[in-house]
Order: sequence, then structure tokens, then C-alpha cells
Amino acid sequence: MKRCPRIIPVVRACMLGTLVLGTAPARGETPGLSARTDIVRQFLTRPEGTVPLAQATRGTHEFTLEVHRIQTEIVPGVQVEQWAFGFPGQPASVPGPELRVKVGERVQITLVNTHDQPHVLHLHGITSLAQEMDGVPHLSHEVRPGGTFTYEFVATEAGTHAYHCHFQTNVHLDMGMYGALIVEEPDQIPIWSKEHTLILDEWDSRHDGAKLPYTPQYDAFLVNGRAHPLIPELKIPSGETHLVRFIHMGALPHSLHLHGTSFLVIAKDGHDLPLPYLADTLPILPGERYDVLVRGRDGTFP
Amino acid sequence: MKRCPRIIPVVRACMLGTLVLGTAPARGETPGLSARTDIVRQFLTRPEGTVPLAQATRGTHEFTLEVHRIQTEIVPGVQVEQWAFGFPGQPASVPGPELRVKVGERVQITLVNTHDQPHVLHLHGITSLAQEMDGVPHLSHEVRPGGTFTYEFVATEAGTHAYHCHFQTNVHLDMGMYGALIVEEPDQIPIWSKEHTLILDEWDSRHDGAKLPYTPQYDAFLVNGRAHPLIPELKIPSGETHLVRFIHMGALPHSLHLHGTSFLVIAKDGHDLPLPYLADTLPILPGERYDVLVRGRDGTFP
Amino acid sequence: MKRCPRIIPVVRACMLGTLVLGTAPARGETPGLSARTDIVRQFLTRPEGTVPLAQATRGTHEFTLEVHRIQTEIVPGVQVEQWAFGFPGQPASVPGPELRVKVGERVQITLVNTHDQPHVLHLHGITSLAQEMDGVPHLSHEVRPGGTFTYEFVATEAGTHAYHCHFQTNVHLDMGMYGALIVEEPDQIPIWSKEHTLILDEWDSRHDGAKLPYTPQYDAFLVNGRAHPLIPELKIPSGETHLVRFIHMGALPHSLHLHGTSFLVIAKDGHDLPLPYLADTLPILPGERYDVLVRGRDGTFP
Repeated sequence: MKRCPRIIPVVRACMLGTLVLGTAPARGETPGLSARTDIVRQFLTRPEGTVPLAQATRGTHEFTLEVHRIQTEIVPGVQVEQWAFGFPGQPASVPGPELRVKVGERVQITLVNTHDQPHVLHLHGITSLAQEMDGVPHLSHEVRPGGTFTYEFVATEAGTHAYHCHFQTNVHLDMGMYGALIVEEPDQIPIWSKEHTLILDEWDSRHDGAKLPYTPQYDAFLVNGRAHPLIPELKIPSGETHLVRFIHMGALPHSLHLHGTSFLVIAKDGHDLPLPYLADTLPILPGERYDVLVRGRDGTFP
Repeated sequence: MKRCPRIIPVVRACMLGTLVLGTAPARGETPGLSARTDIVRQFLTRPEGTVPLAQATRGTHEFTLEVHRIQTEIVPGVQVEQWAFGFPGQPASVPGPELRVKVGERVQITLVNTHDQPHVLHLHGITSLAQEMDGVPHLSHEVRPGGTFTYEFVATEAGTHAYHCHFQTNVHLDMGMYGALIVEEPDQIPIWSKEHTLILDEWDSRHDGAKLPYTPQYDAFLVNGRAHPLIPELKIPSGETHLVRFIHMGALPHSLHLHGTSFLVIAKDGHDLPLPYLADTLPILPGERYDVLVRGRDGTFP
Repeated sequence: MKRCPRIIPVVRACMLGTLVLGTAPARGETPGLSARTDIVRQFLTRPEGTVPLAQATRGTHEFTLEVHRIQTEIVPGVQVEQWAFGFPGQPASVPGPELRVKVGERVQITLVNTHDQPHVLHLHGITSLAQEMDGVPHLSHEVRPGGTFTYEFVATEAGTHAYHCHFQTNVHLDMGMYGALIVEEPDQIPIWSKEHTLILDEWDSRHDGAKLPYTPQYDAFLVNGRAHPLIPELKIPSGETHLVRFIHMGALPHSLHLHGTSFLVIAKDGHDLPLPYLADTLPILPGERYDVLVRGRDGTFP
């Protein structure tokens, strides 16, 4: 389960000390590694806090999400009840529909609560939004059954993020109320020819998560809502480079291993890593996102 | 639980092979990344082993720690028994008092065992100390009830460390016998205006950890000894940059997520990372420490 | 347990887009960090897929592995049944014998199934092999009791890998069917004077893993097949630098902590890290491998 130490900032100005790289020289710092200085300086000067909606440089991108109770076969022969996001007029699903927006757009996501429980929409990883758009009970709006609320923010940085309900999180998130939220850079040709989003989760197929008390004993590991052997195959043709976006919306640490190839880990939590690294096993903990490049090869590797 | 493969070095000289960067070129090495060579060379030449107490360049910094049995409300309405470190004449607490020293100081920590169990003081992350100061039963002193022992070392590198009892570790550490040990660089103005230390732990509130056999089923996640909603809010005013030092003294993997902002991870285990990275979710495993920079923003984010 | 999203590449050509570093400038990229560009370009151009056996530049390195049922005392007084790899005429063990080959060699590993269960040999981390050599049931050969199969590949990159049975993986791997597979760079003098391979695993000593259903409650943490206090001491003389190769063949996250020293993490999953980093605590998840440099010091540190 995700744990949040409460960080409660208050508007107040403050003089920073002289820019000194902490205690770097005495702590194993590499002389000449000026990239370190650059990264820290960049962090200290990047915009922080709410980006006013008027600062959008592109048009408005609107989505509407409803909430439905559905029955899904997550393991062959195992049907579970889920609370699922869906576009109006389309079947709801776990994960909910992927929302894709572009840097510069003003994003409007209207949550129409067609369910019998209160819900919110937390935009996991989006930092340009105002507090009332953060989708956390008590600090922003709760959307009661029959109610609606429109979450708005300006997309400012490309990256892999997620949305999920944050109301009684351990229950609502576990019931399947999550989906991917991808922010794309509009003016660049990516180095990958195709991309895939894989959302990880676990399920206790023997227990209805809506029945309290809820202390799950997970027995199914889900990728995009399905457990093996219902997980669809991911095909990467030889000669192609694909981007795989991993999003962990579950509660347990996982270790993802690919056969027959090593991948390049290029981003974590929607931020490019300063230096990508090669690996064939990716540890991922709840709430994390990783972008990895995978190149196709001959043969079929499970 | 922390697992230590037994590394038992013995004094003996040895010629190193010629300095070659392992098998770098064949293993995905980046040509021109000379920082890699620098880091390896620096590692091979950094001082290793006991720093004689006479090499302290600053004064002596003395602390005295006692051990007391206390009762603490860790969750509203849930009182547990703890074994806690405390300064003489002051209430003991979990975590114990934070010890702050400066690079160059000779540090003396006197453990006065005012408790009915044997204890030791392990200085987690301090590598400049001699074996008998390492606070591990059988290889250094055990402090019997009523006894005292003074641990001494020269602080040589700034960083985030910890102290904890290493006697029957799974019981004594779980009973709350830990605290932060921060080594500061004395001559530099930090880039952060304020700092916070957050020590993570878990508790089985239904089981007295001192009663054996002890196989905990943790039901409370603690930050600085308290579970939600007793964890105090951490305020970072807009415009300010704070340093948050995370120390994991518990037994389970955790994933820490901040809302409304991304932080910069600058150090692990008291060592500056060669290149800091942005994230909003921090995986942390038992024994690890991470230093992250967080910038304040408008609004209140849980 | 290792989880593999099914990556099933198919031979087909494809034009890549222009080489653009993703969405780097907008995503917190460091200007001037050209090493990032180099790493991505190198990844996009490295050879991918099967390396024909005829491309071996050195001789053939042959191994034969048998499979035997053995009884082992993993904790003092606790004897468990294991399924173990071994060279013919030598006692089988858990881990199986370490296989060491050199870059350029054609490697032949003949699995002689002297056991009463079907087995395969998966070469964890080796990416230059053909699909039928990958040792995954249904996609490559299953070696029936009494049968044999020779796995062949060209060793192309130095690194720390593993072999293990992938037939009913959660049972066969847990019964002890794993070992180290080290690929060495033949023409370089390493910067370490000695090296050690430590394979991590867990065991449920109260349950025979071969009896289904198998839902282990691990009670022993194993290093090279033995739990404390049967784990042999690892001696690193003062003045020496050793390489320690950690391989995780178990199912739980672990956190490895060394006393009295900080180590340098130089490689993950058999690939050199772009920048090594100092640490004293190493998180490692199932399937991962880490190479760390450790320097000896005075004293004895557990």
C-alpha cells in the first residue's frame, strides 16, 4: 500500500542559502561530474506548484469517466466483482480507459459518479494541478453518488502517470479504480515505433474487496487486469524498438524479468533518468512507473 | 529483517592488478563516460578501515544514552510497550534522540544500560570505527544491565546514518531501540533551508515483541514512532527547499509517494548519488537511507 | 516469484523514426549530459537476437549437468530434500556447480536428466541464444526423465547470470535447481584480486516443496544454500578489493547490509551501470544480479 508522509506546504517566501552542492566533496563526490551540479540547479529552478489554467498553450482536452460495477473473469474460471472506470456508452473495465494528453493542453476530466459509493479522481504524478484538483478526500472534492466533478489541470511535462480513486484507498483502488494517464510530447518523433502500457496489480479472488474488514491475501497477479494465462501476448517484431510503460497500481513489490533480451530503463515516475541503464529484471514497487525500451528479436520468448 | 552476509576481513596486504575498468567496453559501457573511471578509481583509493581517534580534527562530541521501558500510544487508542533510548533526565522515546555530529569530531556515545536486558549500540553506516566500537554481540562489547560502555569514533563523512541495538536484533530493534545519527559537513551552507528526519518502522500492536517466540504480523506503519493519523504534518513553505532524510529501521519494503510535487533523490545510505534523479515514489528497503530534496508549493498535499 | 509479461517478438523489419531523445528536454533532462544520448544510441545499435554458433571466436566449452535428489542440512539440525544439479561423478549441490565461460566461447551445456521429473535449463540473462535454447517448456525442449539435451550459445558479453530449471518454476526452482553462470572477459586484468558468488534463496523447511499444493511460508534465508549460522564467512583481507556477485534465485525482496564498510555497486543483471554508486545496503529482488566491489579493512565485521 502506498504510504504518504504528510507534506503540507504553506505559501511563504524564503531566502535560500548560497548554492552549494551540499556536502558533496566530502561525501564521495566525483570531481568533474558537473552534470550533478546541473541537475541540482535545474531542480531548484524548475517551476513548482499550480500552473494556472490560462497558461495552457494548446486546446482543451475533455474526458468523461463513469464508475460501474462489473463482473470480470481475471483468471480462467474465476469471476470477481470490480468497480471500474469507463467512458460513457462504452463498457467500463479494469484498468479504466487510458487517457492520453499532450504537453500544453488544458485537461478536463469529468467524473460522473454513476456508482453507489463516493469517489474521487486522484491524478497520480501530475504536479501542476491545484490542491482542489488533486482528488484527495477532505482536501478536495468528494463526488457523491449521482454527483459530478470536473478535474482540470495544464499538462506541463511528458511522462507516464496514472489516475485512481483515493477514497478509502485500500478498498477502492483494490476494487480496480485505476487507469493510465499518459502525457505526450507533441512535437517530437519518438525513437520507438510503438508503445505499450502495462498496469500491474494483485487480486484476492476469494474475497470481495467491498466487504469490510478487508485484509487481502492476494492470489492473482494482474497485468492490465488479467492474470496468466489471460494476459495478452506483447509482440515486438525483430528490428523494432518499442516503449513499454509499467505502472504499479497494486500493493506488493514485484520483479519483472524478460527472456531473450535486455531492456533499457529510461524513465522513472514520468521523469527521464539522468542516465538510462540496461537490465533484464525490473524491480517495481507500488505507485512507481518505469519506461523501458525493448528491441524486438528473432524467436518467441515468454 | 536485515540480512548480513558475513564479511570478515583480515589484515593482510595484497597487490592489486593493473587498474582496468573491469570488462567495461564489452558490457555496454559508454565510451567517453570518464566519470565512471573516476568513480571506480576514487573508490579504490578512499581510506578504508579504522580512523584512529587521534586523527579527529575537531573537538569531542559527547552523548549519553539510557534505555527505558515506556508505554506509547502509536495508533489512537493503542498503547504498546517499547524499549527506548533517551538522554539522562529526559523522557526516552521511539525513535531515540537524534544524534548530530560534524565531520572531524571525535564522537563519544556512552550507553548506560538502565534496562533489565543486555544491549549494544550499533552505529549503522559508520565505517570509520574500530571493530570493538561496532556494537555487535560477541565481536564487540555487550552492555549488561547496570553496565556502561562508551562507543568512540571519528566522524569522517557527512551523511544520514542510524544507531540501533543489535542484541537479539529482531526483538530489540523491533521494540524500538533505534534513532538517527546524522553527520554534518561543518563548513558548507546547505542548499536546503530546513531539514527533517523521518524514520520508518512497523509494529505488531497486538503482540508484545518481548514475549518469545516473536513472529510479528505488522499492523501499523510508523513514521518517527507514530502511525497515521498521529504522524505530524511536515510543512514545506512555498519557495523553500527542504531536505528530508528517510531512514528505514523496520522489516518490510515500503514505497513512499508524495502528492503535488516531485522530489530529487540526492543520496543513498549517506553517500551522494553520482547523479541525482527526480521521482515521486521512493522504494525503500530495511536498512536503507535516502536523502531527498523537496520544494514547497502552494496548497496542502497529503 | 518472477513475473514475465509475455514479450513475443516476431521477425519483421521496421523503419525507426529519426533518432530523437524521446521527450528529453521537457522532462527534466540535463543539458550537456551527452552520455544519455550515447547510451540510448548504443542501445539502439547493439546486436539483438540469436548469435549464430559459427560466430564463436574461441573454442567450445562443454559442461554436463545431472539432476539428483539429495538431503541437505540447511539450518543446524534441519534436513530438507532438494533437487540438485551436479557434474557427473561429483556430488550434486544447491546451488549447482558454478559454470564459468569466456566471451567468444561456444558454450555447450548438456542436461542429463537423471531424475524422475521433467526438467529444462533456462539460461537466465543470456540473450544471445536461440529460442530453442532458452529452456522454457512448450517453447523449447523439455528433458524427460532419462533424456538429455544440449543447450548451446555463444557467450557475447561478460556478466553475472544464472541457470535454473523453468519447468513448473515455482516448485522446481524452489527445490534448489539453480546455479551461477558467469561470463568472463578473457583479455582484461580485473581490478579485483578475488571474487565471490553469493546466491540468495529462501526455504520453507517445514514443507516438502515437491508435495502439491505448494504455498511456501519461508522460514530460512539461504546464501549459497545454507542459512545462518552455516553460511561460510567471506574473508576480504585489508588492502584487497574483491568482487562480490549477488544472484537472487528466491522469491522475496531482500536487503543486504554490510558492516564497517561501504561497497561500490558496479553492475546490475550482468550489465555495467553507467555510473557506479556507493552504498552499504543493497536491495535485491528475485531474478536480479548485482556486482559490487568491496575493499577489505582491519577488524572482523559480521
